Amino acid sequence: MALKAVLLNCTLKRSPEPSNTQALMDIVVGHLESLGVQCETVRVVDFAIPFGVDSDLGEGDEWPLILDRILRADILIMGMSIWFGVRCSVAQMVIERLDGTYNSTNDVGQYPMYNKVGGVVVTGNEDGAHASAETTLFNMTHLGFTIPPNADTYWVGNAGPGPSFIDAGGASHPYTLKTASWMAHNVVHMARILKRHPIPPEGNTVPVVALAEEMEDMAPGQEKRMLPAVMEEMDGMNGRARRWWRLSRH
Amino acid sequence: MALKAVLLNCTLKRSPEPSNTQALMDIVVGHLESLGVQCETVRVVDFAIPFGVDSDLGEGDEWPLILDRILRADILIMGMSIWFGVRCSVAQMVIERLDGTYNSTNDVGQYPMYNKVGGVVVTGNEDGAHASAETTLFNMTHLGFTIPPNADTYWVGNAGPGPSFIDAGGASHPYTLKTASWMAHNVVHMARILKRHPIPPEGNTVPVVALAEEMEDMAPGQEKRMLPAVMEEMDGMNGRARRWWRLSRH
Amino acid sequence: MALKAVLLNCTLKRSPEPSNTQALMDIVVGHLESLGVQCETVRVVDFAIPFGVDSDLGEGDEWPLILDRILRADILIMGMSIWFGVRCSVAQMVIERLDGTYNSTNDVGQYPMYNKVGGVVVTGNEDGAHASAETTLFNMTHLGFTIPPNADTYWVGNAGPGPSFIDAGGASHPYTLKTASWMAHNVVHMARILKRHPIPPEGNTVPVVALAEEMEDMAPGQEKRMLPAVMEEMDGMNGRARRWWRLSRH
Amino acid sequence: MALKAVLLNCTLKRSPEPSNTQALMDIVVGHLESLGVQCETVRVVDFAIPFGVDSDLGEGDEWPLILDRILRADILIMGMSIWFGVRCSVAQMVIERLDGTYNSTNDVGQYPMYNKVGGVVVTGNEDGAHASAETTLFNMTHLGFTIPPNADTYWVGNAGPGPSFIDAGGASHPYTLKTASWMAHNVVHMARILKRHPIPPEGNTVPVVALAEEMEDMAPGQEKRMLPAVMEEMDGMNGRARRWWRLSRH
Repeated sequence: MALKAVLLNCTLKRSPEPSNTQALMDIVVGHLESLGVQCETVRVVDFAIPFGVDSDLGEGDEWPLILDRILRADILIMGMSIWFGVRCSVAQMVIERLDGTYNSTNDVGQYPMYNKVGGVVVTGNEDGAHASAETTLFNMTHLGFTIPPNADTYWVGNAGPGPSFIDAGGASHPYTLKTASWMAHNVVHMARILKRHPIPPEGNTVPVVALAEEMEDMAPGQEKRMLPAVMEEMDGMNGRARRWWRLSRH
Repeated sequence: MALKAVLLNCTLKRSPEPSNTQALMDIVVGHLESLGVQCETVRVVDFAIPFGVDSDLGEGDEWPLILDRILRADILIMGMSIWFGVRCSVAQMVIERLDGTYNSTNDVGQYPMYNKVGGVVVTGNEDGAHASAETTLFNMTHLGFTIPPNADTYWVGNAGPGPSFIDAGGASHPYTLKTASWMAHNVVHMARILKRHPIPPEGNTVPVVALAEEMEDMAPGQEKRMLPAVMEEMDGMNGRARRWWRLSRH
Repeated sequence: MALKAVLLNCTLKRSPEPSNTQALMDIVVGHLESLGVQCETVRVVDFAIPFGVDSDLGEGDEWPLILDRILRADILIMGMSIWFGVRCSVAQMVIERLDGTYNSTNDVGQYPMYNKVGGVVVTGNEDGAHASAETTLFNMTHLGFTIPPNADTYWVGNAGPGPSFIDAGGASHPYTLKTASWMAHNVVHMARILKRHPIPPEGNTVPVVALAEEMEDMAPGQEKRMLPAVMEEMDGMNGRARRWWRLSRH
Repeated sequence: MALKAVLLNCTLKRSPEPSNTQALMDIVVGHLESLGVQCETVRVVDFAIPFGVDSDLGEGDEWPLILDRILRADILIMGMSIWFGVRCSVAQMVIERLDGTYNSTNDVGQYPMYNKVGGVVVTGNEDGAHASAETTLFNMTHLGFTIPPNADTYWVGNAGPGPSFIDAGGASHPYTLKTASWMAHNVVHMARILKRHPIPPEGNTVPVVALAEEMEDMAPGQEKRMLPAVMEEMDGMNGRARRWWRLSRH
C-alpha cells in the first residue's frame, strides 16, 4: 500500500495568492511522488479555523477536516513562512490545534501521531529558518511524530529585506534543492521502516481508563499533557481494553 | 498629561471566558494606575483580525481599531499565554500585523513606535516564558520600542501539566508579584524619560521621499524592512519635508 | 549485541560538585540499563575541550576521547542545565564540536551520526526546558540522529528562583519520572529498529570524492554543510568507492 | 565626559585568527567613535574564563578583568557568531558569568547594569541572527540594561553554507551597514539620555540588608534572581544604608 503524506502550507496568504512556501513544498512533493508517496497539500488559511487547543471547537470549525487527513497519513510535512524571525502565526495555530490529539490514542494506546513521520519546509526572505524548524520539529516529537535525520528544508535570503523564494530563484539554490531531496528521502525511508516495524507500545502508552476518568474533572484544553503522570498505576492494564479507546471524535 | 498604556491580551480564549493572562495583566494595571497611567486593555481575539502583515487589510478588518490605540499610547504591554513552549498564535499574529507600521513614520521620520516603551506579560501552566518574552521584546525593538530593564513579568508552574495562574494562586507568587511591580515601574520611568527627552531623529530616520518611490515597486507586505537600505542617499533630506509623511493611513 | 548509550552531562560544574542534571540522568540510566543498554556517562567539563568546530584541535584537545565514544554508541543522550532561559554554554560547545563530523561519513556515505538515536535531559530551577531541548534535538537531526517521539525529559520549578532538582525533590515529580521512562523506552525502541533496519543510503549520502577535492579549498570549519550542494554530479558514484572514505581522523 | 563603550567579541577563534564578527564590530566602533564614544574591544576567548555563574571563580579566573570594564562603561555591545542557528558558546558563557552581578547593586540599590545600554552584533554564514540577538538582548534586560530601538546589527548569507562576512563582502551590504549605523546612533542617544536622566531607584531596587542575610544560606550561583522576592518587607529601607553595599567583590 502506498504511503500517504499530508503537506500543510501555513502561509498567511489565502488562495489564489501565490505562496513562496508552496513553491518549495512543490519541489518536496515532486520528490515524494517520485518515491511512490500519495501526496495531499492543504493551504490552512483557506479553511475556517478558530484559535484553540481542542480537536473540534464546534459549529463552523473546519479543523476536523484537516485533522482527519493527518490521522490517515503516514507523513506530515509542515510548510511555513518566517515572520519576525520565527514561524508564522498560522503554523503556531496548527500546532495549538494538534494539542487536542493528546486526548486520544491510537489502537495500541500511544498518542495518535506515533509511527507517523514529520518534516518541515520553511521559506522567508531572510533569517529565522532554524528557529522555525526547531520549534516545529520538537513540538511534533511531543505529539508523537518521529523525526528522521535532515528532516527540514528551507530557503532564506541574506540579511535584511529582499526578494522571496520565487523571485529570488530559490528553486535553483543548490543547498535548498539538496536538502529538499534529502528530507523527502528520509521521511519516506523512516515511514517505510515504521510501517513494517512500528514503535512497540511498551513504556509509551496512555492509561486510557484512568484517563477517561481524570478528564472529566479537567478544564478543557488545559491538562492534556497530564496523561503521562496518571499512567503510573495502570501498567498492568489489558492491551485489549485499550482498543475501545480510539479517536472517538473523528 | 497622563501617560497612556495599551495592554493587549493575546489569549486564545474569547470573552467572557476567564483568561489567566488577564489575571496577571490586571496586577500590572493596578501598578500602572497607581503610578498615574491611564490604561486600556484589549482582548485581541474578540476582534476580527485577519492574518497578514499590513496595517489595514480592508473591509471587516478590525486591526486598525487596535493599531490606533497603540499609536496614541506611550506604553504597549503585550500579554500572552504559552503553547508548546513559545508565545501563542494570537501574539504572533499581532506582531505580524505590526509589520505594517514599517511603512510609515512618526513626525520626525522615525518608525512610528519610536519613543514608546514596551513590556511583556506571560502566563502558562509550565515552561516557555523566556522564549515568549525574548521573541516579543526583540520584535518590539525592531519596530521602534524601547525596552527598559526588567520589562517582563511571568508566571509558570513546574515541569509538565498542572493548574494555570488563577487556580494555582499565581497572584500570590512572590517572584511574579515582584517582577510585575518592577516591570510596571520601569516602563513608567522610561516612558516619562522619553516623553521629556525623546530619542533624537539622528541616524535613525527613514528617507520618506525615496521610500515612497521605492514602495511603488515593492510587493505589499514584503519589503518594508528595506527602508534602512534605501536611506543612504537621503542624508541631506530636509527635516520639514519629512513632516508631510505621516501615519497617513490612520 | 547489547545497545550502547553515551550520556553527556553538560553541567557547568566540575566533578566532584553534585550535578542536578546528573541526578535526572541517573534515572534515565536506570531505565536504559533495565532495558539492557550498556551506558557510559561523561561529565564534559571535566575534560579539556577548547572552543571550535573541528573534531580534533590538536595537542591537549580531549574532545576526540568523547567523540570516539559517541561514534561507537547507538544512542546519544545530551544532559544540560538551563541558564538564562536556554541551554548552557557547555552544551552549545559540544554541539559546535560535533560540527566536525560533517567532514566524514559512515561506511555507506551518510553523515556518521546516521542510524544513531538522540535524546535530551534538561534541568533548571525554572523555565527554559523547551528552548534547551528543541535547539538540541534539532541540531542532532542535522548531524544525522533520528529523534523518536517524546525523546526529552526535564524538570524545572515554577517561575523565578528556587531549589534545583535535587533539593526540590524532582526525583519524585510524576511528570518528570514519566517522561524519563517514556524517553528511555523510545530511544531504545528506535535504536533497536534502526539496528536491524537502518536508513538506506539512498538520497542522503555525501559525495566523498567530490567532497575531498572541494574541501581542500575550504576554510576549515566553515563550509562543511556545503556537502549537500556538491553532491549533485556524483549520483552515479560507486558505493564501494565510498567505503575508503571513513572516519579517517578517528 | 565622554561616553564609554565596551565591545565583547565572543568569536570562537583566538587571536590572531581573523574574526568575521570583529570586522562588523569595527564598523560599529567607527560609528561610535565618530559620535565621541571611547571604545574598548575585548576578544573574550583570549582570556582564561572558566564556566560558571559567579563574578570571581578564584585563582586564574580572568573574568573579573572583563567585568571591571563593563562596570565602568555606559554601553555594552556583545558581538557573536552563529553556530547551529543560535549564539555561540562563548557568548552564552559570558551571559552566564554576568549572572554574578545579580549579587550586587549600584549605588542606589539597583542591579549594577541599570542605566547602561545594550546592543548586539551578529555574524554567521547563514541563518540564526534573530535567535542570537533576541536571546542576548533579553538576557541583558534581565541584568539591568536598557535596549533602545534597533539595537542590533547582523550579517548572514542565504540558506546553507557559503562565505562568511569578510569574504562575502558583508562590509558593503546595505542593510547591514544601515543597521550598524542605526544601532550605534541609538545606543549613544540612549546612553546620553540615561546619563542625564537615570532610571530612578523606585520600584526596582534590591533590599540589600535582607539580601546579605538571605545570601548566606543560599547555594552559590543559584538563587540570585531571588532578590525581587525578598524585597517585599524592605520598602522603608534607608537609601544611605544601601550605599555601603556596593560591588564589594571588585
